[in-house]
Amino acid sequence: MTHIEHYHDWLRDAHAMEKQAETMLQSMAKRIEHYPDLKSRIEQHLTETQRQKAVLENILEQNGINRSVLKDSMSKIAAMGQAIGGMFPSDEIIKGAISGYVFEQFEIACYTALLTAAKKAGDVAAVPEIQSILAEERDMAEWLLHHLPDVTEQFIMRAETDGLEAKK
Amino acid sequence: MTHIEHYHDWLRDAHAMEKQAETMLQSMAKRIEHYPDLKSRIEQHLTETQRQKAVLENILEQNGINRSVLKDSMSKIAAMGQAIGGMFPSDEIIKGAISGYVFEQFEIACYTALLTAAKKAGDVAAVPEIQSILAEERDMAEWLLHHLPDVTEQFIMRAETDGLEAKK
Repeated sequence: MTHIEHYHDWLRDAHAMEKQAETMLQSMAKRIEHYPDLKSRIEQHLTETQRQKAVLENILEQNGINRSVLKDSMSKIAAMGQAIGGMFPSDEIIKGAISGYVFEQFEIACYTALLTAAKKAGDVAAVPEIQSILAEERDMAEWLLHHLPDVTEQFIMRAETDGLEAKK
Repeated sequence: MTHIEHYHDWLRDAHAMEKQAETMLQSMAKRIEHYPDLKSRIEQHLTETQRQKAVLENILEQNGINRSVLKDSMSKIAAMGQAIGGMFPSDEIIKGAISGYVFEQFEIACYTALLTAAKKAGDVAAVPEIQSILAEERDMAEWLLHHLPDVTEQFIMRAETDGLEAKK
């Protein structure tokens, strides 16, 4: 395979990943009731994700990649995203928060490889776009890990208190 | 559920996670042929993982948790680990490196929640042990992400070059 073919494959993967991120984030935001900070950060990232998806669609178009074939592309990487994403709208806030963090890190790794491929392919227009997506994913991952101890403490406290619901 | 029950559940999850990490890392180390730096870092982390597993077994014992029940505990979190881990001994080095990174981040998130629970449970002996495991997971994750652009470049170059194998 040529470096251009790898680049195009990974672009398709990234697009599939953002579509899945959108579904996950929507489902999680809808479920959360008692963790308002987490809910609003997820809602913010949902908006970012929708922008990222549009950016990728533009890069795909600039690279002459037909969007109609995207539906069928279910690579092994996309399958991994689905396995993580399937955990996200979990029945329990801690597992949900962990899955959300893991999914962000999955995106960070995929974009890091994609960035190398974009540079190698000489797609100078795409490089800063990918870097800006990467920065948003990093911010979201950092936020989630930084707030995980708080969320865990609240969860443990609520789970022990009669009449309080802890899980969502 | 009480905070002690949550703590014990998460300890069991962590142990299941390390058992899986061990299998994944062994399988990956065996497969890699043309990426010696990655191979040796994985071998180093395999040794760390075996120590971490032993540390957790000790913490479980100190908490009076019978090890024989561990075999049956396959929580949703452990299932997510398995889904990520299943990708690790991938047929392609980039997907393998990404999965390895994602698995480390999964461990980091789980230990972050576990640490909060250990503090809440007053398990003062376990706290520094968990912190030291967490530091090793962070180092491994950082190493993998830092080296991913290099591995990606080598992979792309090898895949384009006649007579060179790129995938492992």
